[in-house]
Amino acid sequence: MAQKPSIPKGTRDFSPVEVSKRNYIMSIMRSHFEKFGYQPIETPTFENSETLMGKYGEEGDRLIFKILNSGEYLGDFNRLILIYLETIYLTILNELSKGIHEINTQNELLDKYVKAMLSRKFIQEIINHINKDRSEFRIYNFYSKSLIKAISNEITSIRSSEYIREEFLRQILEECEECDPRENIRVKNFVEKVAKDTYGRWFSNIEAKDLTKQISEKALRYDLTVPFARYVVQHQNEIEFPFKRYQIQPVWRADRPQKGRFREFFQCDADVVGSTSLWQEVELVQLYDSVFATLGLNGVTIKINNRKILSGIAEVIGASDKLIDFTVALDKLDKIGEEGVKKEMLEKGIAETALEKVQPLFHFSGSIEEKLDKLSAMLSSSEEGMKGIEELRFICENVMNLGLQKANLDLDVTLARGLNYYTGAIFEVSAPEGVAMGSIGGGGRYDDLTGIFDPKSKLSGVGISFGLDRIYLVLEELNLFPETVSVSTEVLFFNLGESQALEAMKAITVLRKNNIKAEMYPDAAKEDKQFKHAQRRAIPYIVKGIEGDRFSVKHLVTGEAFMVSVEDLIGRLK
Amino acid sequence: MAQKPSIPKGTRDFSPVEVSKRNYIMSIMRSHFEKFGYQPIETPTFENSETLMGKYGEEGDRLIFKILNSGEYLGDFNRLILIYLETIYLTILNELSKGIHEINTQNELLDKYVKAMLSRKFIQEIINHINKDRSEFRIYNFYSKSLIKAISNEITSIRSSEYIREEFLRQILEECEECDPRENIRVKNFVEKVAKDTYGRWFSNIEAKDLTKQISEKALRYDLTVPFARYVVQHQNEIEFPFKRYQIQPVWRADRPQKGRFREFFQCDADVVGSTSLWQEVELVQLYDSVFATLGLNGVTIKINNRKILSGIAEVIGASDKLIDFTVALDKLDKIGEEGVKKEMLEKGIAETALEKVQPLFHFSGSIEEKLDKLSAMLSSSEEGMKGIEELRFICENVMNLGLQKANLDLDVTLARGLNYYTGAIFEVSAPEGVAMGSIGGGGRYDDLTGIFDPKSKLSGVGISFGLDRIYLVLEELNLFPETVSVSTEVLFFNLGESQALEAMKAITVLRKNNIKAEMYPDAAKEDKQFKHAQRRAIPYIVKGIEGDRFSVKHLVTGEAFMVSVEDLIGRLK
Repeated sequence: MAQKPSIPKGTRDFSPVEVSKRNYIMSIMRSHFEKFGYQPIETPTFENSETLMGKYGEEGDRLIFKILNSGEYLGDFNRLILIYLETIYLTILNELSKGIHEINTQNELLDKYVKAMLSRKFIQEIINHINKDRSEFRIYNFYSKSLIKAISNEITSIRSSEYIREEFLRQILEECEECDPRENIRVKNFVEKVAKDTYGRWFSNIEAKDLTKQISEKALRYDLTVPFARYVVQHQNEIEFPFKRYQIQPVWRADRPQKGRFREFFQCDADVVGSTSLWQEVELVQLYDSVFATLGLNGVTIKINNRKILSGIAEVIGASDKLIDFTVALDKLDKIGEEGVKKEMLEKGIAETALEKVQPLFHFSGSIEEKLDKLSAMLSSSEEGMKGIEELRFICENVMNLGLQKANLDLDVTLARGLNYYTGAIFEVSAPEGVAMGSIGGGGRYDDLTGIFDPKSKLSGVGISFGLDRIYLVLEELNLFPETVSVSTEVLFFNLGESQALEAMKAITVLRKNNIKAEMYPDAAKEDKQFKHAQRRAIPYIVKGIEGDRFSVKHLVTGEAFMVSVEDLIGRLK
Repeated sequence: MAQKPSIPKGTRDFSPVEVSKRNYIMSIMRSHFEKFGYQPIETPTFENSETLMGKYGEEGDRLIFKILNSGEYLGDFNRLILIYLETIYLTILNELSKGIHEINTQNELLDKYVKAMLSRKFIQEIINHINKDRSEFRIYNFYSKSLIKAISNEITSIRSSEYIREEFLRQILEECEECDPRENIRVKNFVEKVAKDTYGRWFSNIEAKDLTKQISEKALRYDLTVPFARYVVQHQNEIEFPFKRYQIQPVWRADRPQKGRFREFFQCDADVVGSTSLWQEVELVQLYDSVFATLGLNGVTIKINNRKILSGIAEVIGASDKLIDFTVALDKLDKIGEEGVKKEMLEKGIAETALEKVQPLFHFSGSIEEKLDKLSAMLSSSEEGMKGIEELRFICENVMNLGLQKANLDLDVTLARGLNYYTGAIFEVSAPEGVAMGSIGGGGRYDDLTGIFDPKSKLSGVGISFGLDRIYLVLEELNLFPETVSVSTEVLFFNLGESQALEAMKAITVLRKNNIKAEMYPDAAKEDKQFKHAQRRAIPYIVKGIEGDRFSVKHLVTGEAFMVSVEDLIGRLK
């Protein structure tokens, strides 16, 4: 029964100190979210699979953790076997039908083996096939025998798919040896090809989705945005719009774990849905500034861009269909330089003359106002681009008018996150200079947040997210956690035997009523042991003696020692 | 793409008001836990399956939510098919071997069908079988044909197991018709029995565990105690013992959802591990009292018992092996009365003379002290029982000496929760009289918390749990949530067009810096619409006009209206 205990890779235990520090960050976020009018919601850990699947692209679908249907899912097992065998069969049949005219060889009749092995449905497929062209019959028969053997081996040996493929191949080739020698080489080559191709794709071809649906109908939350959209549509009659919500909950991704990337991590999101007002973008920049200022994190840079500007640039250079290629190249400016970027753009089919039009992008510096002016000159022919400039100007001017506490605002035309869904503003926050930590937050506007769940409900949303884990690491690196964050018990009463223990507990009861964190060492252990316990837990005060109604107190760091009444102790510790 | 959105049964969305109320309860718990010296830890949402499986009994294992292995789990699919077919086969073979001497009938030889269908391994089994007794060959052959047909039907039709059973039965009986008439009836009866028995157990017999392991290696946390034990063993070198931890996290159970029972719910646990001191039991009673007093929940009853007393009683009545039967019967005292309980005990084999010894239990009233005295008289011959009394006396006397704020303490000898793991004190808290809500908390001591993960580390633990959902319902029913809990935004500035919006946002920025929850309606909508928004969100103050540096404020409930500067507004709202 004994097991060496461990936790799944990519997950973490959090110690008391870590929990306290994380709660410190989250409680600051929470208080600012609420000060800005955002209200908390929480959604279930798992959603119906159809709520999540297909919302994050193919890669996302793969990274979603699926939950096995509970209880008796074995009843569905027949279906799985069917799907499995059928898929194998149909895949091979398909391959054969492709190659059927390439080869024709004599072979035995379809015998009882096949009838027994292949189900009625399979046989029906074969008969349909045969009826189309009698000449296919022979070649089919040949393969079906090998197929039977292979399947039969497969289900009876616990083997890797690699092994099965090789085994199948071997068997087919053996049978070939018995063929008419004139056909031998031709058959051999063809069979080898079909078998390799087919079996090589067996496992990748079988639609994991089909199988998964049979045994799993629920999946762990992958982000907070899709559940939020689902929440908004499901509860639209109870919600007063515009709806400003925040949500701080864990999400799960079956990503390969690596340094700083976990399979379970918290997201901290604030979004508004149901209004297109740009004041919300203004406010979200203020919210970032406000949270980071309170965390003592000075000098973060809130980078802003607008998808419409990126579209405008693409339009101006005649590459509206190459928006992604273009932004991917532009994004490499600080790595591969102007010439490198231009080279890549040319390779992607963007004309040299077009590139001249966006020449200023390669030396894009100055104040936000100067950058906006440069963009205006560049994008004057693009309606969408000019709209993007207008939006950015409104946001930046108003942010500046209202003033930021500690953060810098910067316009970054290379910023291109979330192009699959963001339609307006794009935000990203980078840690203060000198801290190697990439982005610690990001967000943007998506014009149609809820359409995936209700085509009639095309609500515009805009939101930002805070990267809890990275913020934690930055605060740790810069030593910005207040010392008080992880202070737990303030005073430990020694247990000096049962007669004094009750007196100690009486005092502790009073202290606790006065909101002082106090406790007694539970056992009447040796004084030294109790002393070490206080030290190891970094409890500042110990009470190591009681005389009448006075307590002998010592501060473990300063060494200061004194006798006080409970009331005086309260005064000192409060 | 559009879907009617919903959430899985047994899960919940929490609205802003609900989140606020839940956070209110949890933050009170948290602050008291910390005042009592308990430190927070958090463990991952999913654990390795082997950490959880087998720790909660058979029923528990079934109710644990399993997570599908991510990525390419199809590679393991062969194994599943093998296990499945093999189990079916072996089950039937087993049934046949039991009945083999009962019947003997003529039948055809094992034909190619069987060879093709049954794998080498199966055939080897058959041959082994045949070698033992040639006469079995015939009967085996008879069944294997039917078996083949049945399996073949099964894997080719998407059918329920019920259907398959019937179909198999039908086929066997058809074959019987062709048998030697002299054998017909005998065969028919036997076959019917075997088929029914065997197929009826098909699906329940297949070890779900074996299949599940292949496709799932992780499972959702089922409670907080087992992960805590795992945490303690895994981190034992970093932990300073005795270790007082609290943990507030959701758990998941695939229970049938019903009123008040959810598949996702929070547990709020405080436990100490690494000391057997009874002061901890004392403290935990105080902790319950302290939390419920702060929540304003007066008159809860903290019921206490001790497993050793239950064992002592069972020992005294000579039914140490009937501890569960005995406590189950005793627990029904208030439902079926003294005579009913006695009758049930007699039925369970407890002697009438024995019952006389525990006669006082049936009229068990009075103060805790009186009850302890009665128990002492009753259990004087049981060492374990007397130990339990001593423990209870220590706990209750000290709790009384220290005093409780609002809760009642009661000794309840019928209290018998968690007998599978609790070894000492047992706690349960019931809601105030008049509130129909069962227990709102429970706990106890378990002498060996960590042995399941490390036999060398047999640490004693004692802990309590708070039932968040039920406490929520009780506070709601008794109207005990403070009104301020769900107050969100305090003042809404109307958006009176872009020229004034900036002024409004300037004022809001100042208010927020002074920790006042303020916001502006994002769009310059009609005044009426903005007004309704404030009303629907229950925002008390609106600012509906700006004149110079003064704001026209109105209180939506009292109707009071006034003009103030930002500074005065701060003073009023702080």
